[in-house]
Amino acid sequence: MKIKVILTAISLIVGASYVSAALAQAKPEQLVKQRKAAMVLIGKYWGPIGRMESGKSPYKAETVTRNAGYLAVLSKLPWDGFAESTKDVKSRALPEVFSDADKFKEAADKLMKTTAALAKVADGGSEAEVKEALGAVGKSCGGCHKNFRAKK
Amino acid sequence: MKIKVILTAISLIVGASYVSAALAQAKPEQLVKQRKAAMVLIGKYWGPIGRMESGKSPYKAETVTRNAGYLAVLSKLPWDGFAESTKDVKSRALPEVFSDADKFKEAADKLMKTTAALAKVADGGSEAEVKEALGAVGKSCGGCHKNFRAKK
Repeated sequence: MKIKVILTAISLIVGASYVSAALAQAKPEQLVKQRKAAMVLIGKYWGPIGRMESGKSPYKAETVTRNAGYLAVLSKLPWDGFAESTKDVKSRALPEVFSDADKFKEAADKLMKTTAALAKVADGGSEAEVKEALGAVGKSCGGCHKNFRAKK
Repeated sequence: MKIKVILTAISLIVGASYVSAALAQAKPEQLVKQRKAAMVLIGKYWGPIGRMESGKSPYKAETVTRNAGYLAVLSKLPWDGFAESTKDVKSRALPEVFSDADKFKEAADKLMKTTAALAKVADGGSEAEVKEALGAVGKSCGGCHKNFRAKK
């Protein structure tokens, strides 16, 4: 019985320290900083291939393949940064991110899906196929920004 | 002959617009912002598994596998942000980044190598093997920060 109490106490302490470690991670300002960082990198690797889609830059398959691979990963990283706790931190996120969370999640899922599709097509697909996939990614960026991000 | 001149002129114009597109990307402040973003995300995904290595958090194989996969990609992203053009932009990068570029590149390569090794080991390796790989990543973070980043 005594052992059981001690074990319960230990597991509570371990549990609490785990939770506090997780919470230490989850300071709202830090979350906003991290989600912005993900967006900055998405912009870094989207920019050059977005310009290829719109014909502003010449098509370079090698760059598309590399950037698409990065974007398929980077597109997964912003979302846990939009925690409810960040609602009052100054950023361009509109209140709809939190009040219309289902639609926001749908928009996030769309970016993950279109970048994954792009990465797949970029691995050996034709320029026309790749450009179609690029168009879908661009649309998913724009759709979310339009509904969930304040204009500058 | 006339055609040759025209073609040369066209290729120069195309070349120039390509270069200017590349340069438009490469504003020093933007490069610094992008490299910082990569470091922020490396910190986001390293933090929780670094704490597992040091025993501050309980070991969770699932988190290690996920974060290691992200880090293997993220560790490739900061380096083109340390272009010579950023030398005078305010940041914690020490002058040695540019004056001892070979050693800096070596340190960057080490991070890419150790995170790739971690991602490999995290895919089914034992806790002991993973913790050894985590240790190597931690060392490669610290080594570079010690020599190439100003203290706060």
